[in-house]
Amino acid sequence: MNKKELINQIKEKKSFLCVGLDADINKIPKHLLEFEDPIFEFNKQIIDATKDLCVAYKPNIAFYEAYGVKGWESLQKTIDYIPKNIFTIADAKRGDIGNTSKMYAQAFFETFNFDSITVAPYMGEDSVTPFLEFKNKWVILLALTSNKGADDFQFFNSGDQRLFEKVIQKSQKWGNDENLMFVVGATRPEMFSEIRDLAPDNFLLVPGVGAQGGELSEVCKYGMNKDCGLLINSSRGIIYAGNDESFAEKSRNEAMKIQKEMAILLEQFKLI
Amino acid sequence: MNKKELINQIKEKKSFLCVGLDADINKIPKHLLEFEDPIFEFNKQIIDATKDLCVAYKPNIAFYEAYGVKGWESLQKTIDYIPKNIFTIADAKRGDIGNTSKMYAQAFFETFNFDSITVAPYMGEDSVTPFLEFKNKWVILLALTSNKGADDFQFFNSGDQRLFEKVIQKSQKWGNDENLMFVVGATRPEMFSEIRDLAPDNFLLVPGVGAQGGELSEVCKYGMNKDCGLLINSSRGIIYAGNDESFAEKSRNEAMKIQKEMAILLEQFKLI
Repeated sequence: MNKKELINQIKEKKSFLCVGLDADINKIPKHLLEFEDPIFEFNKQIIDATKDLCVAYKPNIAFYEAYGVKGWESLQKTIDYIPKNIFTIADAKRGDIGNTSKMYAQAFFETFNFDSITVAPYMGEDSVTPFLEFKNKWVILLALTSNKGADDFQFFNSGDQRLFEKVIQKSQKWGNDENLMFVVGATRPEMFSEIRDLAPDNFLLVPGVGAQGGELSEVCKYGMNKDCGLLINSSRGIIYAGNDESFAEKSRNEAMKIQKEMAILLEQFKLI
Repeated sequence: MNKKELINQIKEKKSFLCVGLDADINKIPKHLLEFEDPIFEFNKQIIDATKDLCVAYKPNIAFYEAYGVKGWESLQKTIDYIPKNIFTIADAKRGDIGNTSKMYAQAFFETFNFDSITVAPYMGEDSVTPFLEFKNKWVILLALTSNKGADDFQFFNSGDQRLFEKVIQKSQKWGNDENLMFVVGATRPEMFSEIRDLAPDNFLLVPGVGAQGGELSEVCKYGMNKDCGLLINSSRGIIYAGNDESFAEKSRNEAMKIQKEMAILLEQFKLI
């Protein structure tokens, strides 16, 4: 999916919501365990219930990998089930030397046909660029994450620059706003204006709204750009809204609450 | 496997060689394509030919992931085939927020029963510690990698410290030399003495000898400690030494060349 198609989808659905598919066999409703593939059945019902309210789905790859071969089968079925006009993110945090990153790119862009993948920047240019060589595919590079451990290295300071700023600045020479997004956690909304100085046109994938405590309106105030430029992720808050046979309906209600808030924000910022 | 068992293995085999299992369907000998699972058949023959000469095997997870479900089946068979007294490394470069790293740990330490996993440090403490909670399992944290892109961020300098030094220093508060190793590329042998100041007792996993140009004797000169403290990885140089029906024998010859050099170095440093 290219940038224009993503923006169109945001305007049509009046939403910039990404639903995180972190399906955990220990957390999904018990009645699903009777199905042959409970994880896929869970995702299928969540997708059916939310696909008109969100513009992206983000399977968290760890949750599939944890079950070995069976988990990868559930992931394959899930990605095949997501409607083709919805943006897909492999939340995989991959990154390795060039010939290995190329294999990861092949895994997620060809074998699974994801639109994008999250990538960790530690190993530098040749660990990132192999992902950028695929047409209409995206790298979503970790910049400033939403977890506590983000403080350990991402704020490491050279005097005039912090590491996450260097990552944003340097990586823009490798890609552009048509194939490169950044992960910026919602837990530090005040950082968004500094990040927008460095990356005015790139989309930002924003985890940490909801369960992790970030505020949607604050993120928009500092982080929205002329194209919206934000994909706000919610995982647990939506997919585990219910725990019985009506779980999908409850997840729809949660997604709708966020979508309505997003529609108001999009109007407020004159984007629709 | 615990540290003592690893050291004993090094002394018995007079080797600190790790063989990287980066099996690529486009590079393995053509006659293997007739087997039901060519990747596993290739690994099986490499393992049979080298298991008395090396102390560790390191499947590069990207090479399995690239083939989706089928690749994970090959990985499962490979890890099950490696003799239990040989150290196993999932070269996966994982790392995510706490609850997600926990799932990755479960994937590699429980579902696949690897002894260790390579982890990327960018997301900090809570992305690393979930891996450290498993008994007799190891984190191998990226510090200074062997690729060109290592220059981009790993040398980012706060004035009195570079990022890779901060990673080594800080992470030692999370783990110890019984559960934490570091990746240090052989392409910068002169850096090993500085790294040994920060991490005198930790094992170092050293890629980049051979195909990437690093020198074994130089690495030992600066990097060896009282326990040996090094696992030297060679992937392409060993597994693709031959490309016909005698490929396994040729890989054995390459592994033996390195093992003999290692035996001399171990004697020279009075470790055997």
